[in-house]
Amino acid sequence: MKICTFTTFAFEKKMNIPNEKLGKSLADEIKLVAKEERIDPNTLKKRICNGKVVILKLKDFAPVGIGEGLRTKINVNLGTSSSEYDRDQEIQKVLVAQKHGADTISDLSMGGNIDQIRNELMEKCTVPITTVPIYQAVVQEGSMLNISNEAILKVIERQIKDGVSSIVIHAGFSLDDLNKIKGRRIMGMVSKGGSFTASIMSQNNTKNPFLDIFDYILEMMLASNTVLNLGNAMRSGCVHDLIDEPQFAEMLNNSRLATLANKKGVQVILESLGGHVNARDLIQWIKIHKQVTNSRPLFVSGPLPTEIGLGYDHISASIGATLASGYGADYICAITPAEHLGLPSVDDIKNGLIACKLAAHVGDSMKYGLNHLFDPDLQLSKHRFLREWEQQFQISLNTEYLKEKFPKRKKDCSMCGKYCALLTSKRIFDNFN
Amino acid sequence: MKICTFTTFAFEKKMNIPNEKLGKSLADEIKLVAKEERIDPNTLKKRICNGKVVILKLKDFAPVGIGEGLRTKINVNLGTSSSEYDRDQEIQKVLVAQKHGADTISDLSMGGNIDQIRNELMEKCTVPITTVPIYQAVVQEGSMLNISNEAILKVIERQIKDGVSSIVIHAGFSLDDLNKIKGRRIMGMVSKGGSFTASIMSQNNTKNPFLDIFDYILEMMLASNTVLNLGNAMRSGCVHDLIDEPQFAEMLNNSRLATLANKKGVQVILESLGGHVNARDLIQWIKIHKQVTNSRPLFVSGPLPTEIGLGYDHISASIGATLASGYGADYICAITPAEHLGLPSVDDIKNGLIACKLAAHVGDSMKYGLNHLFDPDLQLSKHRFLREWEQQFQISLNTEYLKEKFPKRKKDCSMCGKYCALLTSKRIFDNFN
Repeated sequence: MKICTFTTFAFEKKMNIPNEKLGKSLADEIKLVAKEERIDPNTLKKRICNGKVVILKLKDFAPVGIGEGLRTKINVNLGTSSSEYDRDQEIQKVLVAQKHGADTISDLSMGGNIDQIRNELMEKCTVPITTVPIYQAVVQEGSMLNISNEAILKVIERQIKDGVSSIVIHAGFSLDDLNKIKGRRIMGMVSKGGSFTASIMSQNNTKNPFLDIFDYILEMMLASNTVLNLGNAMRSGCVHDLIDEPQFAEMLNNSRLATLANKKGVQVILESLGGHVNARDLIQWIKIHKQVTNSRPLFVSGPLPTEIGLGYDHISASIGATLASGYGADYICAITPAEHLGLPSVDDIKNGLIACKLAAHVGDSMKYGLNHLFDPDLQLSKHRFLREWEQQFQISLNTEYLKEKFPKRKKDCSMCGKYCALLTSKRIFDNFN
Repeated sequence: MKICTFTTFAFEKKMNIPNEKLGKSLADEIKLVAKEERIDPNTLKKRICNGKVVILKLKDFAPVGIGEGLRTKINVNLGTSSSEYDRDQEIQKVLVAQKHGADTISDLSMGGNIDQIRNELMEKCTVPITTVPIYQAVVQEGSMLNISNEAILKVIERQIKDGVSSIVIHAGFSLDDLNKIKGRRIMGMVSKGGSFTASIMSQNNTKNPFLDIFDYILEMMLASNTVLNLGNAMRSGCVHDLIDEPQFAEMLNNSRLATLANKKGVQVILESLGGHVNARDLIQWIKIHKQVTNSRPLFVSGPLPTEIGLGYDHISASIGATLASGYGADYICAITPAEHLGLPSVDDIKNGLIACKLAAHVGDSMKYGLNHLFDPDLQLSKHRFLREWEQQFQISLNTEYLKEKFPKRKKDCSMCGKYCALLTSKRIFDNFN
C-alpha cells in the first residue's frame, strides 16, 4: 500500500502556531509540574502552548505533565467488563495501581452501573482519570449499531461533569479506511472503541460521528479543562499486520484534529502505534510519528513486539514500551499478564504496572541519559555494594514483596556465599594501599 | 578516562585472516546448523573461518551455532553454590531449562563435589555445557590467593576430558586495569571469575595467569574441539559505572587473544558488556564492540539497564537483552528474578528463561525483520483472530502454564465479553460485501 507523501508534514507545521489559550488557565499547574519535573516553568509553558506538553489533573490532586522533556508517564487500564463486574475488585485495582506508581488511570468499565462505578472509583482516585465515552454509550443504548450523536454527547457531558481528566474518542478514521483494511490484515481492527465507532458508521453509512460533534465536544472540554485523547482505531493487532495506509492516515487526521483543538485552547494527547508492532518498525514509526505530529504528546498501549509470550505479555509489552518510550513516546499504557486472556486480577494489574515502570524508566534513560530520575538507581547500587539489604528493598519498585520474601535477610547472599565478588574485589583494592 | 584511539581497530582487522583450520573438523556440524538456521552452508563455513560464528556441541546432540546471521542463542546459568548445594534441584534446573528452550547451559557449581555434580548434570544435558574452570580450582585449592598455573590447567584438562563444550577464562585484564578501577567505580569488580583471577594476581603481583598457560589451554581445546569463551572480568556492576578504559582495554585484549586462538584453530566467543549498562550506552557500545572485534560472536549476560527492579530483574534484563541482541549481540544469558538476591529456584530459572526468550526473539526481529523465526507469531495471530485458544496455547512459550490456568477455556474472553472488537470488526467487514 502506498503511504501518503511527505508534503503533508510541512502543511501540518504551518498550522501549528503557539497558542496562548492552551496554557491560560494552567498557571498553578505549570508551576507544580515544572518543579516536579525539574524544568524551567517558561519552557514548560511554551511547550504547552505549542501542543507538545499537556497537563492532566483530577480535582486538587497533583497535576501530571505529559510530553516533551518530561518523565515518561504510565497509565493503568481497569474497569468492569460485560461478563465480569466486581466493584470491589476494581476499587482494589485503583488502590494497587496508585500504590505502585501509576500516573493515570483509565476506567474502561462496560459492566454494571457504569456511572456509579466510575464515581466510586474516582472517590478513591488521586491521579487523573480517563474514560472512553463510546463504551458507556454502547451499554446505555443497548446497541452498537444505532447510537445518535446526541446520545454520545450526553455521555461525554455526564462524564466531564463528574470530573474525568481526559476522554478518548476515535475520530481520525473513516469507512473508506475500514474498506482498505478488509482482507488485508490478519487481525482486522482490534480497537474496541474504534470498532464501536465503526459499527455506527457502517450501519448508517455515515462519516465518523465524532467529526459532526467535534466542536461541541471541544466546547465542553474547554470549559472544564478536560484533555482530549485522540485514540487509534486503526492500530494493528499482530506484528505481521504492518503499518498501513489507514493507520498512517489516522496519524495525520488525528494530528490535524489536534491542531483544531489546540486552536480552541483544548489540550490534546495523540494515541498511536499501540497494539502490536514489530520492533524494527516500531522504532522507525515512533520517530516518524513524533516528526509528523510536531512532537505532540504520544500515548502508546504496549506495544507488543511478539505474540508468543501469551501469559507473559506484560514482559513482551515492557520490551515494546521501552523501545517506544526510548525513541519518543511520552505516555505508555501498562499491559498485564492477563492480556489477550481475560479481565486482569488485582495481582495482574500490579505485575503489569511494575513491568511497565521498568520500561518507562529505561526509556527515560534512553531519552535523557542518567539524569535525576536515576538517583534511586545510584542509591540502590551504593547499598548493594555494602550489602545493605533493607535499604535496597526500600528503594526497589516492590518493597513489600521483597520484605515478605526475605523477612530476616542475612548479610550473605546464597548466590555466591563466601565467594562474593564484591568482597573479593574490595580485598584486592585494599591491597593496593 | 581516555579511551584507546581508534587506530587499534585497523590493526585488529589486519590480524584477522580467514583460517581454514577453524572449520576443519566441523563438516557435519556445519551442515546441521546451516539447515537449522536456514542459511547457506558455505556462507556459514566462511563465517566460522572468519571467527564470526562458532559451533558448540555436546556429545552427539544437535550442534548449536552462535554468531552472525544466526538466531540469538540463550544460555542458562545454574549450579550449586558454596552455601546451598542440592544436587536434585540443579538437575531439575537442567531439565526445566532444556524443556523451555535453553540453547546452552553453564554449570557454575562451587558447592559439593564439583566433578560429580558436573557429570551428573551432563548426563541429563542435551545442549552444550559451559564451565568456568577457575571456580573449581578455587574450591579444590581451598584458596583464591595461591593457585598455581598447574592447578588451573589440571582443572581445565579434567573438565575438557569430561566433555564440556566450552570453557570461560578471564584472560584480558591486568593488575594495572584493577588499579585504574579503584575508587572510580561504585561497584568495583563484579565478575566472580574475574575476582578469583585478580585475587591470584594481586597476591603474587603477577600478570594474568591465563596468559602464561594460554598456549597449553589452546592445545587442549583444539584436540577436543572445545570452544573458548573469553569472559569479561571488567564488566560494570551498576548503570552508573560507565564503560571505562579497563573495560574497553579488556574488549581489545580479548579480541587479540581471540585472533591468536583462531589462528591455532580454536573457536572463540567473546563475553562483553554484561552486568549493568545504561540503555543509551548499551546500544552504542554493542555496535562498537561488534566493530572493533570484527563481528566475533558476542555473549552478554543481562545486561540490566536499571537497578530498581530488584526481584524483577528478569524483566529488567529482558529489556537490556533485547537492546543488546537487537543491536548485535549473538548470545545472551538469562537472568532470573532471584538475581542479586540468592541462588535461583527451579521456578526462577523457568521465569528468567522465558523472559530471556522473549528478548532474544524480539532482538532477532530487530536484526533480521520478520523472518521464519516469526512463523509461530503469525500462526498464533491467525488462531487468535479465530479465538482458537487451544492452538494459541500450543504455540506459546509456556503451554503447560496456560493449560493449567485455563483447563476449560470458553470461546469468549472476559476482557471484552460480548463487546469483542474482533467480532465487531468481522461483522463490519462482512457488511462491505
